[in-house]
Amino acid sequence: MSKRLAELGEDRLVKRLMKGLPVGSNVITGPGDDCAIIGRPRDRKLKLLKTDCVVEDIHFTRGVDSRRVGWKALCRAISDIAAMGGEPEHAVITIALPRDLDLGWVDGLYAGMRKAARRFGVGIVGGETARSPGPIFINVALTGTVERRHCVQRSGGEPGDAIYVTGRLGASAGGKHLDFIPRVNEAQWLTRHFRLHAMMDLSDGLGADLPRLAAASACGYRLEPASIPKNSGASVEQAISDGEDYELLFAVAPSAGSRIESAWCRNFPRLPLTRIGELVQPSKTRKSITARGFDHFAPA
Amino acid sequence: MSKRLAELGEDRLVKRLMKGLPVGSNVITGPGDDCAIIGRPRDRKLKLLKTDCVVEDIHFTRGVDSRRVGWKALCRAISDIAAMGGEPEHAVITIALPRDLDLGWVDGLYAGMRKAARRFGVGIVGGETARSPGPIFINVALTGTVERRHCVQRSGGEPGDAIYVTGRLGASAGGKHLDFIPRVNEAQWLTRHFRLHAMMDLSDGLGADLPRLAAASACGYRLEPASIPKNSGASVEQAISDGEDYELLFAVAPSAGSRIESAWCRNFPRLPLTRIGELVQPSKTRKSITARGFDHFAPA
Repeated sequence: MSKRLAELGEDRLVKRLMKGLPVGSNVITGPGDDCAIIGRPRDRKLKLLKTDCVVEDIHFTRGVDSRRVGWKALCRAISDIAAMGGEPEHAVITIALPRDLDLGWVDGLYAGMRKAARRFGVGIVGGETARSPGPIFINVALTGTVERRHCVQRSGGEPGDAIYVTGRLGASAGGKHLDFIPRVNEAQWLTRHFRLHAMMDLSDGLGADLPRLAAASACGYRLEPASIPKNSGASVEQAISDGEDYELLFAVAPSAGSRIESAWCRNFPRLPLTRIGELVQPSKTRKSITARGFDHFAPA
Repeated sequence: MSKRLAELGEDRLVKRLMKGLPVGSNVITGPGDDCAIIGRPRDRKLKLLKTDCVVEDIHFTRGVDSRRVGWKALCRAISDIAAMGGEPEHAVITIALPRDLDLGWVDGLYAGMRKAARRFGVGIVGGETARSPGPIFINVALTGTVERRHCVQRSGGEPGDAIYVTGRLGASAGGKHLDFIPRVNEAQWLTRHFRLHAMMDLSDGLGADLPRLAAASACGYRLEPASIPKNSGASVEQAISDGEDYELLFAVAPSAGSRIESAWCRNFPRLPLTRIGELVQPSKTRKSITARGFDHFAPA
């Protein structure tokens, strides 16, 4: 009997598709992290590569100001480059559009992308346009660079590490998902001054993403739900499950954690940094996360 | 009154979206050519970057073997890297899929992409999955490299240049559009042995693409319709208008053209190379192209 995507779920689909992929030369990290990392053994600077899309009626609705959609489309990919400590560089944009779409909508989309590109030093160097017989699709592929010694993956966490999160979580659908600020500066400051063990950006919700970081690090985790910083109006459950926070989640040795906390306040006084739990031995995960993050293919 | 995409057409939409784009540093060629070209002034090797998509019911139908769709999705981008004389390197894949899609379809898609990746030495280094509330959407972003002295753009053609095309054109919808071979080897041989003035791959049909090459080179063109090599079953009109040929179109000095012709037969005995016209002064375009290529947003 044939199986449908909804029965499998996103993580298992991705694992299945990754099997047997020809990864090619000079690939340090392939599928499975925020970005691919490419570099020869002696390169001091590594290349990052990321692809990401937003789809109408999944990630935005047509009624919303398209400048915000453009901002979101580019900033989602920027957030992934940031999550490795990287600097975004060059983007290429694919748009598939219904033929009856208002031209002003497309103009606004590009205005939003130009604004994000200028703010984060990204060059928009190419694109592709196609017709869509259905929803609007926008894909952003983004390159970046990172110094090898500053590059942080998901997989370096160790039992005992403190887990931190930037900003506040939950209720992003109220508007933040369209206007969030990717944490490029914060991640670069962190990776330049401290030895982070593991980092990723929160896109599918803490409840989906923390287990991914822990699994990539061959660790379990303990989460302290009461400590999770919540956006106003968000419950703890929402802060865990909602997704689209685009905040940084990282793991460091506890001693480094204390030093980061005191230096953080001086550098980013308006953005909270919160210790929300720890990595543990794999067998010792305390299943305090009952809510799950966003799964594109979960049964409705 | 608001304007819709269908009233504008693809080329004018692209020109409109390119206005005011922040292009970033080290960009040799941004939007408007087959790929973006990136490199510092003294780099011997340049980086290429391309994004491309295929959309269900525009570029393929669901009934077709999905391995052929995967092959096509990756090979379209490979063809653009080839068109600059480049070597494809690393790909990242975005797929947006309906939730009720059969898993076997996705497995086949990836089997086709793996096959193309292995044949052309491409590493598939990352991806993104999302749900689509409509058609299947597949985006491929591909990097490549090219020696600076072998890199060919659209813009270097000169009046008097001979125009050549590889292979045969037209009637690609009969099947070739799913199984074509991107001309990576042929383009590398051409660029290493001869000084091509301009090159591109034929994706929207000779009738759309030749005027683009001529315009990028600030030239006009004369086409000899009787000389156009046609796939079996294709009329001259189809060979000009159908699109999805994925053959090389290039311009060279006439003397180089003769040398290429004789060396070509020895190296690629099974693939025709045909002189189909010439570049001329801009004012002297002979409007022998009455048919037009494929325009995604042209009125139905």
